[in-house]
Amino acid sequence: MVIPSLIERKRDGSSFAPGEWASLVRAYAAGEVPDYQMSALMMAVLWRGLDSAELTELTEAMINSGDRLRFDGWEVPRVDKHSTGGVGDKSSLVLAPMVACCGVGVPMMSGRGLGHTGGTLDKLESIPGFTTQMPLREAEAQVRRLGCALFGQTAEIAPVDKRMYALRDVTGTVPSIPLIAASIMSKKLAEGLTGLVLDVKTGIGSFLPAEDQALDLARTMIGLGESHGVRTVAFLTAMDRPLGRACGNALEVEECLMALQGQGPADLMAVTYALAVEMLLLAGVEADARAARTRLERVIASGAALEKFAAIIEAQGGNPVVAEDPSLLPQAGEVEVYETPKAGWVRQVEPRVIGHAIVAMGGGRQRVEDAVDPTVGFVITVKPGDRVDAGQPIASIFAKDEAGVAIGVAALREAIEVGERVEAPPLVSHRVTEGGVEKLGSKEVRK
Amino acid sequence: MVIPSLIERKRDGSSFAPGEWASLVRAYAAGEVPDYQMSALMMAVLWRGLDSAELTELTEAMINSGDRLRFDGWEVPRVDKHSTGGVGDKSSLVLAPMVACCGVGVPMMSGRGLGHTGGTLDKLESIPGFTTQMPLREAEAQVRRLGCALFGQTAEIAPVDKRMYALRDVTGTVPSIPLIAASIMSKKLAEGLTGLVLDVKTGIGSFLPAEDQALDLARTMIGLGESHGVRTVAFLTAMDRPLGRACGNALEVEECLMALQGQGPADLMAVTYALAVEMLLLAGVEADARAARTRLERVIASGAALEKFAAIIEAQGGNPVVAEDPSLLPQAGEVEVYETPKAGWVRQVEPRVIGHAIVAMGGGRQRVEDAVDPTVGFVITVKPGDRVDAGQPIASIFAKDEAGVAIGVAALREAIEVGERVEAPPLVSHRVTEGGVEKLGSKEVRK
Repeated sequence: MVIPSLIERKRDGSSFAPGEWASLVRAYAAGEVPDYQMSALMMAVLWRGLDSAELTELTEAMINSGDRLRFDGWEVPRVDKHSTGGVGDKSSLVLAPMVACCGVGVPMMSGRGLGHTGGTLDKLESIPGFTTQMPLREAEAQVRRLGCALFGQTAEIAPVDKRMYALRDVTGTVPSIPLIAASIMSKKLAEGLTGLVLDVKTGIGSFLPAEDQALDLARTMIGLGESHGVRTVAFLTAMDRPLGRACGNALEVEECLMALQGQGPADLMAVTYALAVEMLLLAGVEADARAARTRLERVIASGAALEKFAAIIEAQGGNPVVAEDPSLLPQAGEVEVYETPKAGWVRQVEPRVIGHAIVAMGGGRQRVEDAVDPTVGFVITVKPGDRVDAGQPIASIFAKDEAGVAIGVAALREAIEVGERVEAPPLVSHRVTEGGVEKLGSKEVRK
Repeated sequence: MVIPSLIERKRDGSSFAPGEWASLVRAYAAGEVPDYQMSALMMAVLWRGLDSAELTELTEAMINSGDRLRFDGWEVPRVDKHSTGGVGDKSSLVLAPMVACCGVGVPMMSGRGLGHTGGTLDKLESIPGFTTQMPLREAEAQVRRLGCALFGQTAEIAPVDKRMYALRDVTGTVPSIPLIAASIMSKKLAEGLTGLVLDVKTGIGSFLPAEDQALDLARTMIGLGESHGVRTVAFLTAMDRPLGRACGNALEVEECLMALQGQGPADLMAVTYALAVEMLLLAGVEADARAARTRLERVIASGAALEKFAAIIEAQGGNPVVAEDPSLLPQAGEVEVYETPKAGWVRQVEPRVIGHAIVAMGGGRQRVEDAVDPTVGFVITVKPGDRVDAGQPIASIFAKDEAGVAIGVAALREAIEVGERVEAPPLVSHRVTEGGVEKLGSKEVRK
């Protein structure tokens, strides 16, 4: 295999022959291909694309660069959910215990915050004592025992993806749909799943704001999942505003606990139920959506889902009493109420501004090695389309100190636009399966 | 300057702002930009191109990464000639002493063989004792004293081009017209020239076989030259067959000596005169082409050009007697005459096959560190369009041993096609200036 001629062929728009992506990834993993060749190739892939056979082989090779979860001999179906990332995007923490209560294994391997978006691991780590780092064999055992483990990508899972992603991040080669799909799916398909539900975010707060790109990514990931024998369904959901009210690690965990107690905000619950219902259907534990929904509502009403979350917290070293008493979560030094200066209709709550403000306030990372302050963030009680009066309290800022409050106030002023009435786009807009795209257009439910 | 966002902007088709290419090249030269970012950027440039302001700035930055020749206070005009490379492409060695005899300085910095094409330095080094490595200050002094120096790119000239070229070579980013133009011109424009003549090869034996690409490269290099205040003219010449009869280092030097004695093959002399006439015109030492041609013919007829070459050889450590007695050049161990197996018209003499065979016979490099056997090669006495009889001797093979002869015979069988009559494309097809393209269409002159 001569690497320069491989690069030249992709540059000129050809597809690699069977076996070539596998050999290349193996050679890269073995340190035989320098990063300067891989980065040039990634740019050529971003330019020319990958056909579906190439993409399947690349993804398989990335999975094979590491270990995977194994559930041999275990009859329980395993279904995970993956989100492409957003602000206030906390549905994982609500649906994982709900689904695990319904006879489905949820081996949920998650990531950290990236750019303006939050990360499930950072949220979980705001729970005192909670650890997200565990060996794969331990995660498997916990899934078998409790139905769920919430853990971070270990060095054993798709290590070559980790290296390729870090390289792409600094060489302008991130926004390639096949490369994004391969990166996501190389981790998800190493989880030993029978089914996978994807939450593909659209709108300005997402990484692929345009609907056609989000659909393209959804279809590409579904193709990869199905070709690996994992039944895969995707939803397109709105990330033109934060999901739920809380944005910031500990604040979001608190909102999830409220949701598990039956007190979740309507938009968060709408997305959570859409995804969780699909997970039960893919698992085959319910035959229709109505029955699945009823079963999920019941595990909330009975307290079983909250109890499951407490059991997971305990199993992963955290203080399970948090589930009943969220005041045990770390608390911000300063809390300030924000009032809208203007009457009218909320036209926008710009999620990127909110996300970047949380990073600036210490609640996210500017560099990989940065520590995260779990306490900072926002609770924003209005949504696009809401009517507000001048001077009405519409948000709270949670900060470390006065300087943080100032950042928060400035961000809310910039992010929340009040003026003429607008219609917000639907919250859950499309359901995508191997068979096609179903337009849902469900409006955001308001209490 | 944030390198990833620069890469992203080029990837998305934007141009860099003034100063950005200069900063980037400085940072790369200082080791502050890793190769994996530069290679991804080069692929994005290959994809999206460079506008003329970007190209000028990049080239200037590459020149400024090193030293340049200085002829301050010297009134004599300096004109060089550059060829994009071919097989049997030896006109430099004929025209440099000719032009230097006409009151024009020729500071000729050349390169080595690359792929199937020969290199001027390798040819010169077949002259016993000849050295092509000299400090810039020495090259300047020799040009002032003798009117010409024939030397290799030193580490002082455009060092960043050297690194970028080596990187492009292994990352599939060579065939970008702006990058090729910047690489060539960063060296030529460091020669302290008043004028430059470019020999842009077309046809299957050249690096840009298609005429439109060759024209594009010619125009791009002319734009760069003129924007740096160097009057620049290009010719497109045919490289669908070797130039002249001799192919191989010492054999080509011998042919050049014959040419300087007035015995050069017609095609070689046609290209040499076209280029040399233009050099005299650009230098301003002659006002029209006819007068320039007459003057050049006179320096051949008088023996002045041959004497000049001998003086250059002597100045650069070689044995000047070679000029009168080419038998002092190293001689091949085996010489075999090749006869055409078939009667008809010569349809093709495929230059790449000839060039690769010379490399395989030891006369070129497979790796940078390889030594070159100067004696091996071919003398091919037929051209496309010639009539041949079965059994007619049409070439000689010069090899180290019987194995080399076998490679040579196989190559000639593959390269030389005999069959129905064809018309060969014109030898010197276009003259390109800042003002436009003149189609010449001159047929190859045959003796």
